[in-house]
Amino acid sequence: MTDAARPARSENGRRDLMDIAIDCFARYGYQATSIARIADSAGLTKGAIYYHFRDKEELLFEAVANRLSQFERSVSGQILPIGDASKALRDTTRVCLDHATKSNHRRFIVTLMVEAIDTNAALAEQFRAMMQRFRGFLGEVIKAGQGQGIFRSDTDPAQAAAVYAGAVMGAEIQYYQDPQGFDLEGTVNAFLEQYLASLEVRPGGGLDKS
Amino acid sequence: MTDAARPARSENGRRDLMDIAIDCFARYGYQATSIARIADSAGLTKGAIYYHFRDKEELLFEAVANRLSQFERSVSGQILPIGDASKALRDTTRVCLDHATKSNHRRFIVTLMVEAIDTNAALAEQFRAMMQRFRGFLGEVIKAGQGQGIFRSDTDPAQAAAVYAGAVMGAEIQYYQDPQGFDLEGTVNAFLEQYLASLEVRPGGGLDKS
Repeated sequence: MTDAARPARSENGRRDLMDIAIDCFARYGYQATSIARIADSAGLTKGAIYYHFRDKEELLFEAVANRLSQFERSVSGQILPIGDASKALRDTTRVCLDHATKSNHRRFIVTLMVEAIDTNAALAEQFRAMMQRFRGFLGEVIKAGQGQGIFRSDTDPAQAAAVYAGAVMGAEIQYYQDPQGFDLEGTVNAFLEQYLASLEVRPGGGLDKS
Repeated sequence: MTDAARPARSENGRRDLMDIAIDCFARYGYQATSIARIADSAGLTKGAIYYHFRDKEELLFEAVANRLSQFERSVSGQILPIGDASKALRDTTRVCLDHATKSNHRRFIVTLMVEAIDTNAALAEQFRAMMQRFRGFLGEVIKAGQGQGIFRSDTDPAQAAAVYAGAVMGAEIQYYQDPQGFDLEGTVNAFLEQYLASLEVRPGGGLDKS
């Protein structure tokens, strides 16, 4: 067994494999990606993959979970603890735009999430929980803004969170459908401005100006 | 050949078949739906199906096109000619909510649209064109509102159309993902109110009040 073909037994090796797998899935689609193709891309034997993952579906599940937690850490790392709630929503939007445009991984995740609704109950549950966590996080930001006195107190945080999550996801899907023709950044920013205007006690205000 | 097994040669028969096919696809998924199953549901022979459609994919394409044009006729029939633009957006939202909740066909269409992005270029093109038409329609409503003097003239109609299309689609997807737990109507209506407030010269106004 050569060095390249030796199983990467460390947690790092496992994480690298998940990155490579997501990359293959995003590029070729889940169906068209074999364990052999992932092994090839990783410079490993198929046996080395099976050392870490029972089968392709387990690899998909783990890779998706890993990618979702990367996104969540990326959001919470840049936003928590919540300071100015308006700024937190602007920062969250910027992270979403970054993830949507920087690589094709997010596109794969979002399209897989929708596909899973009707085709894979376990995966659908994983995504449902992720969306609930994302809405929960957004709801906390909105509650924080209400506590800071910069967001209107008559807004339902859970409902406002659902509006935000939908508008950003719906803009992304239009972009994935038509990457050349659809202005993702303009659309998401236009949404964000009207959203903040509807939340803020003094539209255009924030902690620093209130 | 019995009466039931005789090909329905009329345009009506073809339309009925597309309805039955969409129903099967929505219920069992495209992959799990065979021509035999559709024939069974229609009370026809497989030959009768092949009289109208070359294969399952052509049936899917035609059925999707038929369903999209039903939605578009439903929107335009209730909204055109555009009167009060705010009311037109309220009516469009109501039609979207009706379609999203009345049957599982719309869920199938929306999830298929996202799935097609990476798996079926011809179908993806069909959906891309549909979304462009929908945004075009919304843009016309917004321009009409600007012409009526009830919508702000500094809004970019195309961008505002993209925001609306995304917010409604994104809310729908959250609902399809979690039909029991997600409040589709509340979310879409909350979005609509903030959207109209951002468009209207005098928020809460309309033709009748201006």
